[in-house]
Amino acid sequence: MRKKVTLKQLARELNLSISTVSKSLKNDPEISQKTINRVHELASFYNYKPNALAVSLKSNKTKTIGVILPEILNHFFAKALFGIEKEAAKNGYKIVTCITNESYQKEVEYVEMLNYSSVDGFIVALSQETQVLNELDHFKVLKRENVPVVMFDRVSDEIDCDKVIVDDKVASKNAMQYLIDTGCKRIAIVTTIGDISVAKLRLEGAREAAEANKDVSLINLEVKDTIIDLVEKESNAIENEIEKFLKENDLDAVLGLDETAAAITINISHKLGYKIPQDISVIGFTDGLLSKHSYPKLTTVSQHAEDLGAKAAEILLGHLVDDYDENYKTATEIVKTSLIVRESTK
Amino acid sequence: MRKKVTLKQLARELNLSISTVSKSLKNDPEISQKTINRVHELASFYNYKPNALAVSLKSNKTKTIGVILPEILNHFFAKALFGIEKEAAKNGYKIVTCITNESYQKEVEYVEMLNYSSVDGFIVALSQETQVLNELDHFKVLKRENVPVVMFDRVSDEIDCDKVIVDDKVASKNAMQYLIDTGCKRIAIVTTIGDISVAKLRLEGAREAAEANKDVSLINLEVKDTIIDLVEKESNAIENEIEKFLKENDLDAVLGLDETAAAITINISHKLGYKIPQDISVIGFTDGLLSKHSYPKLTTVSQHAEDLGAKAAEILLGHLVDDYDENYKTATEIVKTSLIVRESTK
Repeated sequence: MRKKVTLKQLARELNLSISTVSKSLKNDPEISQKTINRVHELASFYNYKPNALAVSLKSNKTKTIGVILPEILNHFFAKALFGIEKEAAKNGYKIVTCITNESYQKEVEYVEMLNYSSVDGFIVALSQETQVLNELDHFKVLKRENVPVVMFDRVSDEIDCDKVIVDDKVASKNAMQYLIDTGCKRIAIVTTIGDISVAKLRLEGAREAAEANKDVSLINLEVKDTIIDLVEKESNAIENEIEKFLKENDLDAVLGLDETAAAITINISHKLGYKIPQDISVIGFTDGLLSKHSYPKLTTVSQHAEDLGAKAAEILLGHLVDDYDENYKTATEIVKTSLIVRESTK
Repeated sequence: MRKKVTLKQLARELNLSISTVSKSLKNDPEISQKTINRVHELASFYNYKPNALAVSLKSNKTKTIGVILPEILNHFFAKALFGIEKEAAKNGYKIVTCITNESYQKEVEYVEMLNYSSVDGFIVALSQETQVLNELDHFKVLKRENVPVVMFDRVSDEIDCDKVIVDDKVASKNAMQYLIDTGCKRIAIVTTIGDISVAKLRLEGAREAAEANKDVSLINLEVKDTIIDLVEKESNAIENEIEKFLKENDLDAVLGLDETAAAITINISHKLGYKIPQDISVIGFTDGLLSKHSYPKLTTVSQHAEDLGAKAAEILLGHLVDDYDENYKTATEIVKTSLIVRESTK
């Protein structure tokens, strides 16, 4: 754990109350200048960090967790943050969030900044660029300084820290199997997030399930685009591509590897006069707003984003509340997904 | 502006380079303990804040903006944050975000914490509880300390600071007028956010437009619920209420005061066999994911959340880049909304 002198220790050495020391560090006009100077001198001597985020009176911890997220327009991360926040609040911890917008450089800067501000620990989902570059030195610094880190969803094997992930491959395999079990035979996979690691795992799982069933044929459409672009534009290009695909292929089911792909598939099916699920079954990923408010309501793989966030927070808090043992053996926790069967499947 | 001693001033008095002073403040092992002690002593004497968030070497500013948001599950705030982040990044500023989850107490704590961490300024949308309690002392402290604050969307008249809002009343009036102009006469207003100030303004605007047209009758349904609840549950209760309402009333249009209300109206209309827009026109508020991915696509009032965030950041940055004049006359900027006409209206 990070060695820091506590307010209590300063108070004891100076023969002052903790409250007086705390006030002196804030240069409270209530306290005499002489006392303020004495406190500052000893604090400097011990390299006490008076300006850490929300210094707790009771311990040498800031009771603040830094959260680094790749983006916030994606409902998944918003929900995960909600879960983190709730779990942290239950334990009297504050959350400071920084958004990297998928940039490696921003991730590096924010990690440094929050570490310099003495957050007690980090919860991180890596940026896309960091995953592509595979540059992780900024986390190795935290490791050296024994600052606890928990990664979730977008993780890296190269960093030895606790991780919380969902088993995207198994989830996707199960979703595909559900389509097969309900009689679908000509199944397409549609994705708008083809370059993200989780999408690759989902594709693998779906393929495995399809290949295990000889009378099922698998048709693959990958719409090249990123989530941020999808949100920012009217996404007509993606829709046109999906429409063309649905017209040209004789399908009885679509597995969308992300929520948007599934939502668009439903809308285009309406446009083409296909009945859901009679003519075509649709399953999506991520149980967000679109799944709940589509017509018919979407059968979807829930990654339990809120639980995922809460679990990451719970693991981190475990390290913060107890003394952090640097020889601790890290673990990867897999949060189970579930298929929420609604009205878009038979 | 906040009076702080700069690294440069410390360096001059100590006859050291700025870089040595900066390193000494971080207790860099490169620097001798004697020099480190000298620097810390002078820094303490001047109340220099060495551990401020990401202290810039060039100025006495941290180049960090604190953003306080009421919630993040609402796509509007996620988009506003995206706008803030983009504008700040353009100008080399970092963003630290704290979510109050609509709690007054959390808002107070986060404002204190970020101020204590020496963010250069704040961008704030008030929590619902703060608006209800009308307790704003935590912002008065910032005012006294001359920390620039810009409020957006959820603002308070009691705080004299720059504000960025959308004219919800005019926006709603225009939307209602659009329905009237396209021949709708029996128009219902549906809202799931009845207790938020913006919803009241929207209701007022819609009423004004309806009352100005004698042959238009207005029917009102307010579904008591909050956005957070809507996201967390399957929202069956709300849907049932809207279904009952649509069945019992002979309508030719619905104005949803929030995106969810409009999206549910569309889905229930499908269920009841009503054709959109032939049998019933629908307009919503907030141009989020649901509007883009509904079937048919929703005509909606765009509040330009991203622009709103960017504008708030731009105004704040204006204060930060120049020296902040405490006698500055604050202003309220109104970001124009627009009606995005898609396929759910005639």
